[in-house]
Amino acid sequence: MYIVQVAMLQRRIGCAPDELDTPCLTLELSLLEHNIERMASLARGAGVALRPHAKTHKLVEVAERQLAAGSDGLTVAKLGEAEVFAEHGIGNLLVAYPLWGEQKWRRLCALAEQAEVRVAADSAQVCEGISAAAQAHGVVVAVRIEVDTGYGRCGVQDASEAAALAAVVERLPGLRLAGVMSFAGQTYGAPDGVGNAARSDAERLVEVASALREGGFDTPEVSIGSTPSAAHIAKLKGITEFRPGTYVFSDRDQAALGWGTLDDCALRLTATVVSRPTRDRAVIDAGTKSLSSDRATHADGWGTIVGHPSWALSWLNEEHGVIALPPGEDPSIGTIVEIIPNHACGMLNLHDWVAVVRDGEVRDWWPVAARGRVS
Amino acid sequence: MYIVQVAMLQRRIGCAPDELDTPCLTLELSLLEHNIERMASLARGAGVALRPHAKTHKLVEVAERQLAAGSDGLTVAKLGEAEVFAEHGIGNLLVAYPLWGEQKWRRLCALAEQAEVRVAADSAQVCEGISAAAQAHGVVVAVRIEVDTGYGRCGVQDASEAAALAAVVERLPGLRLAGVMSFAGQTYGAPDGVGNAARSDAERLVEVASALREGGFDTPEVSIGSTPSAAHIAKLKGITEFRPGTYVFSDRDQAALGWGTLDDCALRLTATVVSRPTRDRAVIDAGTKSLSSDRATHADGWGTIVGHPSWALSWLNEEHGVIALPPGEDPSIGTIVEIIPNHACGMLNLHDWVAVVRDGEVRDWWPVAARGRVS
Repeated sequence: MYIVQVAMLQRRIGCAPDELDTPCLTLELSLLEHNIERMASLARGAGVALRPHAKTHKLVEVAERQLAAGSDGLTVAKLGEAEVFAEHGIGNLLVAYPLWGEQKWRRLCALAEQAEVRVAADSAQVCEGISAAAQAHGVVVAVRIEVDTGYGRCGVQDASEAAALAAVVERLPGLRLAGVMSFAGQTYGAPDGVGNAARSDAERLVEVASALREGGFDTPEVSIGSTPSAAHIAKLKGITEFRPGTYVFSDRDQAALGWGTLDDCALRLTATVVSRPTRDRAVIDAGTKSLSSDRATHADGWGTIVGHPSWALSWLNEEHGVIALPPGEDPSIGTIVEIIPNHACGMLNLHDWVAVVRDGEVRDWWPVAARGRVS
Repeated sequence: MYIVQVAMLQRRIGCAPDELDTPCLTLELSLLEHNIERMASLARGAGVALRPHAKTHKLVEVAERQLAAGSDGLTVAKLGEAEVFAEHGIGNLLVAYPLWGEQKWRRLCALAEQAEVRVAADSAQVCEGISAAAQAHGVVVAVRIEVDTGYGRCGVQDASEAAALAAVVERLPGLRLAGVMSFAGQTYGAPDGVGNAARSDAERLVEVASALREGGFDTPEVSIGSTPSAAHIAKLKGITEFRPGTYVFSDRDQAALGWGTLDDCALRLTATVVSRPTRDRAVIDAGTKSLSSDRATHADGWGTIVGHPSWALSWLNEEHGVIALPPGEDPSIGTIVEIIPNHACGMLNLHDWVAVVRDGEVRDWWPVAARGRVS
């Protein structure tokens, strides 16, 4: 009872963001809409289907806006995320993850009864497991072969392995070969060469798709990921679908890689200066448990403090953030700060709610519906 | 409805840990009990009160075991954590954090109506805010002055600043000076000199307490933190209370610093090999969203894989963990692994439930009751 009262107190509507009980995630609706429309427009212009990765936001309300802007479906990393979105009526989902185990295969087939489902696979073993469950459930599951185009994570290694796996998929009952996909994660490590990394990723994937078609395998879907590839999507020949995630909020890393600027970052953490132990140090009430421990690939420190370029968020503990202050800067205890995170995707995973802001006022609170769906 | 069914399916009792739907946090009850009793015994032997830091576990069931083993109360980092524990009947709480803002001060005073509450402070501004709220609520709040004994985070800097703040606390209605406290976080950076760091921390804090007493301020409580100090607690003169947190589980860092060995780590993440893209690489279904991005201070990599010393968990993405395999190691897809984390405190913050294991069987599921209480 008491907890409910406090929780309601914390979720006030109509206040300014700096009146929130901190730390608190805030989402600027106009910037969110701008990022969604910008990516939808890029994909439309390139003639490529857009299937945003919802692992970034885990929010039903954001997913609905992405679909309304012209996406046919969503991408998720975890089956649990897919279940939450399906439960909220989202009917077209790609689980971009190799699923293993009886429990997961049963859950996948139950999901396939609710929604149009695609799933990634890079091994015969995973395909066999899904096939057995699909037969038991009387469903057909669409499989995309994941190809490692250079990032070095999951995926078959070349066209020959892809063809071998395609043959397995075609042979197994309850499965349908839907296409190929890659992550394109190598774009993140290439600040001066995103275009090259994106091209190399797309070329390798398209080569694999062509080889499959030449081998007689129907391969309609050729899908790449990663927000940094967005600027190059119109030039990437043979790609049918794009699965960016972080673009929806943006963050320090994406701004460094060219997805807008820091001013386009829709997600911020609002925090408060709670201690001024020394002249050159301010401590805020936010640490790794609200910002995550994710480092930026292309920036120093733990976040950008909006409006205070000389303040360095130099050090985080779990619930403390230490700001190194230059001479002459003297924020009082109680000063509210807004932080643009290194990596937005880790943050929604830490919070139950996000305050939705428009025109300087909290208009709504969205529950992070798919948070905690780790499996 | 559907989500509830899935969630129940995932929380099976009576199965072996390797039958869980992964990734999943598992807690070995016998090791938990061992760690709790070991620390309680150390504190008893040293004649020092024990007030475990519950930020590590956020679990009511663990807090109850810590209290049953002889602790008078708990420490928390966030007011929201304190509210959850008080709601579950835990009646003695230290909020080891400087609280700022009308909302927090009101919540603190509401908490003080339910439980015996102490709160940390290192500024007159924070004390004035709490005092005003305490008067409005008709409660008296016990204040501990936080002293920075070398870690460089929050805290007054010396005995003179402590005395000035003690005078403020004594002057303000609704407040009671309860003592002094430090974090002793510098012990973490001193693998060969934990004893020296712990002694230096304790000596500085005791000096401040002595100076306050000489100045006429009642200073009964002299409290230090940090698990690494445990081995030295019996030699630290003048300390009345100890607030270790991570000892309750232990982790790679604590084992490196001498709190038992890796075999004493009670908390593990159970994960599954889901991909074998190359001969030298296995990918598991756990990344930073289930292990956190916390690096170890005294170890490389992202965790220790139990029973496989030659497998290196070399790289994490959000939902992927990449294991570098030496020649001759060839785990099949579906292999279950148990990971000892770098830093336990970040992990409970990511999971809603922990599977409680004894004698190789899941006996219970505990909800992470204080997870998500960021403010």
